[in-house]
Amino acid sequence: MPTYLLTLEYDGTNFVGWQTQPNGRSVQQEVERALRQVLQSEVSIVGGGRTDAGVHARGQVASTRLDTPIDCVAMTRSLNGLLPEDIVVRTVQHAAEEFHARYSATSRRYQYQIVRTPIAVGRQYAWQVTWPLDSDKMKACAAQIIGEHDFRSFCKHDTETPHFRCMVKRASWEVVDQRLLFEIEANRFLYGMVRALVGTMVNVGRGYTPLEQFAEIMARLDRKAAGMAAPTQGLVLESISYE
Amino acid sequence: MPTYLLTLEYDGTNFVGWQTQPNGRSVQQEVERALRQVLQSEVSIVGGGRTDAGVHARGQVASTRLDTPIDCVAMTRSLNGLLPEDIVVRTVQHAAEEFHARYSATSRRYQYQIVRTPIAVGRQYAWQVTWPLDSDKMKACAAQIIGEHDFRSFCKHDTETPHFRCMVKRASWEVVDQRLLFEIEANRFLYGMVRALVGTMVNVGRGYTPLEQFAEIMARLDRKAAGMAAPTQGLVLESISYE
Repeated sequence: MPTYLLTLEYDGTNFVGWQTQPNGRSVQQEVERALRQVLQSEVSIVGGGRTDAGVHARGQVASTRLDTPIDCVAMTRSLNGLLPEDIVVRTVQHAAEEFHARYSATSRRYQYQIVRTPIAVGRQYAWQVTWPLDSDKMKACAAQIIGEHDFRSFCKHDTETPHFRCMVKRASWEVVDQRLLFEIEANRFLYGMVRALVGTMVNVGRGYTPLEQFAEIMARLDRKAAGMAAPTQGLVLESISYE
Repeated sequence: MPTYLLTLEYDGTNFVGWQTQPNGRSVQQEVERALRQVLQSEVSIVGGGRTDAGVHARGQVASTRLDTPIDCVAMTRSLNGLLPEDIVVRTVQHAAEEFHARYSATSRRYQYQIVRTPIAVGRQYAWQVTWPLDSDKMKACAAQIIGEHDFRSFCKHDTETPHFRCMVKRASWEVVDQRLLFEIEANRFLYGMVRALVGTMVNVGRGYTPLEQFAEIMARLDRKAAGMAAPTQGLVLESISYE
């Protein structure tokens, strides 16, 4: 059976998240519905990275197996013609038969945007933090999470997870004008991990948590040790890598 | 009477425009309502630049005269606490008594954003133009509008305008990744002028209108000679200058 890979962008504001749930509008459901309209048959897709309610994606990847081959360019156009304006299909590509958007992924990259002044234009995509923040301290925190660590302190209760170790390849804060951008790439992410990391680092940046305590929080392996989760709207799934 | 100057940012998506109208939600009305709540008295404000329904602003300026002096910092915070999330007051400043946001302005600057691929994140702030565009031709059009010209060809019917001459100080197209940014600064703008200019230049860029014809369109002094107005959501009032 031919396997296809879809690269998707979406604005998570009005979704309950990627995954289909009993109530509310999910991205997966909308894309499956559009595929069904084109192919006139049942289709199910698998997403490569988790995005919770309100989280955006510029590079989500989905895979699907179809009964018959399709024209990728025509399918991209058809889907974009059928999908609501908050979802865009960037590309549809033919993939190896065994390709699986989730299991074949080697890393995911997320970005979190903080703005330092109140904004109206683009407020759907940022956390407005008007307290003074020491970005050097936040950079020092980011440096500490690079490598393989147990991130249990930054994971919402998740009984499905066999272990809490993640290999963080990159983690950095960049200051661009009045914005602070956190970039993180890892082989896997735990439930709520990026938002818990950002919330905790902001506590360090505003002086509420001493910088020295950050390592201790990681070592405690207890979600209660870390700070509040940063709001969903600042988070974007940027891309997913495959071998 | 003390005069104050407010610098405002807003997302025009859900407004009928800056100006209060019989029906619908206007920015002016929302700001006046918030001022009234703080001051507990009738207040009216004047806007420095026109923004139609759906047009955004990062640097709109409004002025108002009050009976008694106010604390500008406290007023900024109070207003931001009361205003809906699609309007932000950047600053409140004391101004010279004769200051008038509209009549004292020496120039306004607008930006228009075109994106070359379909997008979901940030679609509220851009026109998605997926036809091939020759940006060099569009740059050549922009160069032709610099200086003092009669812009009647780019003005929607406006009986209130005594004349159609505008002095364009700057006009340029910049290519940034998959985006085309049009920046224009002039002493005054006619009704619908930026959007008519952008629509016409896109016609040139896509080869629908020959570049040589652009000067002719300007010289015709007839709105029917120019192209369709570009959609409102790509337009942002960036700033207003005063002496």
